[in-house]
Amino acid sequence: MMMQDRVSIREVGLRDGLQLISSRLDTEIKLDWIKAQADAGFAEIEVTSFVPPSILPQFADAKPVLEGAQDIDGLLPTVLVPNLKGAVLAMDAGARKINFVLSVSESHNMSNVRRSTDDSLAMLREVIAESKRRDTHSIGVALATSFGCSIEGDVSEARVANIAEQVALAGVEEINLADTVGYGDPVQIARIFRNLSKIVGTVPLAAHFHDTRGLGLANVMAAFEAGVRRFDAALGGLGGCPFAPGASGNIATEDTVHLFDRLGVATGINLDRLLDVRGRLVDWLSEERLEGRLFGAGPARRTAPGGA
Amino acid sequence: MMMQDRVSIREVGLRDGLQLISSRLDTEIKLDWIKAQADAGFAEIEVTSFVPPSILPQFADAKPVLEGAQDIDGLLPTVLVPNLKGAVLAMDAGARKINFVLSVSESHNMSNVRRSTDDSLAMLREVIAESKRRDTHSIGVALATSFGCSIEGDVSEARVANIAEQVALAGVEEINLADTVGYGDPVQIARIFRNLSKIVGTVPLAAHFHDTRGLGLANVMAAFEAGVRRFDAALGGLGGCPFAPGASGNIATEDTVHLFDRLGVATGINLDRLLDVRGRLVDWLSEERLEGRLFGAGPARRTAPGGA
Repeated sequence: MMMQDRVSIREVGLRDGLQLISSRLDTEIKLDWIKAQADAGFAEIEVTSFVPPSILPQFADAKPVLEGAQDIDGLLPTVLVPNLKGAVLAMDAGARKINFVLSVSESHNMSNVRRSTDDSLAMLREVIAESKRRDTHSIGVALATSFGCSIEGDVSEARVANIAEQVALAGVEEINLADTVGYGDPVQIARIFRNLSKIVGTVPLAAHFHDTRGLGLANVMAAFEAGVRRFDAALGGLGGCPFAPGASGNIATEDTVHLFDRLGVATGINLDRLLDVRGRLVDWLSEERLEGRLFGAGPARRTAPGGA
Repeated sequence: MMMQDRVSIREVGLRDGLQLISSRLDTEIKLDWIKAQADAGFAEIEVTSFVPPSILPQFADAKPVLEGAQDIDGLLPTVLVPNLKGAVLAMDAGARKINFVLSVSESHNMSNVRRSTDDSLAMLREVIAESKRRDTHSIGVALATSFGCSIEGDVSEARVANIAEQVALAGVEEINLADTVGYGDPVQIARIFRNLSKIVGTVPLAAHFHDTRGLGLANVMAAFEAGVRRFDAALGGLGGCPFAPGASGNIATEDTVHLFDRLGVATGINLDRLLDVRGRLVDWLSEERLEGRLFGAGPARRTAPGGA
């Protein structure tokens, strides 16, 4: 491992975290949360999802949340969209980075966005074409169920590679492989990322892991060792997918930052300030069971700052 | 990774798991638990600790628990002892494998067993001499705080190596490095185990991890990749050390077995039967918050048995 390495950790609690739970947060609290994490050093935060409010009412305030977040100095707020309509709304609201989601598993894509994976790929090309016309938006893609699917079981690695290649050729600026249902294991994950890095050229790869079966941080280590430098995480381990049974819990942001702190890998994030935000989350979401181990245990005591 | 690899997972929930919690289990329930895990395929279970009942009353039944466990076909029950007196009691009760615990951190050893590390090393030699006189007991050693200490902070890797070398020369049959307070990280753990494997000759190394800061299974992967094939774990992630603040939670046995199942590494354990025992643990310890993610989520769905 190169100790001068640096990773980028993107907070997704406001999007993936709020997607499944029944608690609703006011727009003002969402913006307080975003601001507090930006102050703690987060360069990128996924702040909302542009989806029909009839399906996910917790994101009915997508536009004011995005607009408020755009005003925060030094922060790149990103948004998730499942289709062209959402992408156009996000572009109209001034989104600088938009993540288009599609599932590698055909059945999961059908459940999640009600179309075939091929139709989603065609729609992604339309989204990219629209963003190029406007010339102010960066398009990333999230490939859900890249490491397994609760409906189909195993997902073919050849299919992951094939879809990633099509997505790279379409002109996305980031490919985020998501272990949506927490099926991935470290050996598989390292193998898939190593394989993809040969296929997608210079397009940066990111990883989005859930801790559904306790392997979240083991998978982070495996992806890191395979060269991944961009990780999603949700404060308090919030999150899940309403269409994937049993798929609860993103990896906890605070535990992930602590891991890289222990490794001496720079994150740009101040862990103490992040733990303060984690403390406020307990009040904001008092009905929810939060996960993550660090908040209760506290960071490991070091003999001397920076010592090993 | 060699797919023909096999690991041995030792259940320590009955010892490390019961050590910290206030719930008390009847001897009969302990033996039901041991029997059920032996039936699920565990070859080795740490069933109790030979310590003064005035300090840890939950182990006042050490002798009947050990004797009951010795009667279970195919099971090697092990016991923990902190001193010569405990070792002699364990030998008198017929223990076939005894784990002597000492801490690499001087301050932690003083808190835990009220003597210096050197005094513990001298006592270990007496325990080995006594076991050789009787010729029926195997002596292992657990080196607590091998990856950090909540009192001292960082623990010198040279000191870990030096103590492990002394312990190997003393004639132990296993060296178990314990991350007692959950400070270890995957890079450090791999480095320490790789270094030790050059120092201790043919003495098998084992790993004992806590999930205090979410790194439990990441650390298992790192140790596995560094060649370790013996792992401690506690059902439901029970456990901790009463003398190490914030040190709660061994890695969960069920999550650990599931990890190796995903990797195609044989454990000899039937995960479905283990999850049945995990279900019974909820009743046995109804006052305790159990950890581990797999029990709630269920094993990952495979497309075909043994598929990858």
